[in-house]
Amino acid sequence: MSEDNNIFIGSKPFMNYVTGVVMQFTTNQASEVVIKARGKFISRAVDVAEVAAKRFLVNSIAVGNINVNSEEFTNREGRQVRVSTIEIALKKL
Amino acid sequence: MSEDNNIFIGSKPFMNYVTGVVMQFTTNQASEVVIKARGKFISRAVDVAEVAAKRFLVNSIAVGNINVNSEEFTNREGRQVRVSTIEIALKKL
Repeated sequence: MSEDNNIFIGSKPFMNYVTGVVMQFTTNQASEVVIKARGKFISRAVDVAEVAAKRFLVNSIAVGNINVNSEEFTNREGRQVRVSTIEIALKKL
Repeated sequence: MSEDNNIFIGSKPFMNYVTGVVMQFTTNQASEVVIKARGKFISRAVDVAEVAAKRFLVNSIAVGNINVNSEEFTNREGRQVRVSTIEIALKKL
């Protein structure tokens, strides 16, 4: 799968991400799109996946594999911090 | 699986949920625990799963199936609202 099929969720307006997903499947004819997010944006990633699959591309895409992980790193104050990550695959039916 | 093996994530202190998961696997000898959350608590559910699996019960439990879904309902103002949900299964290794 090309890296172009990844959508990273951040703090832009919600519909930007949904439109991004829909465009990948329609204009770009992708067979799979992976929605990725870290930390507090994980909830938003699930919202984007659900709205894309259940409101915009109903019966034409579905949620596939979901993976969670976490990365540990040292922050600016020198403390060990763990941040969770998620990858949600959406597949063309 | 008994309903008792479900942990619902809300706004209590973070470690309450991690301890809840750890107790299910240790004191209660559960073979599987399902972490459930809705809306903004979804990110927190992933954090609880990751901390339980990678810091407290390292090499003895792992994240299994993850399912996302959403429920549509009419809120108090009469508007249609969609809320996302997640279920993260943790399994004894």
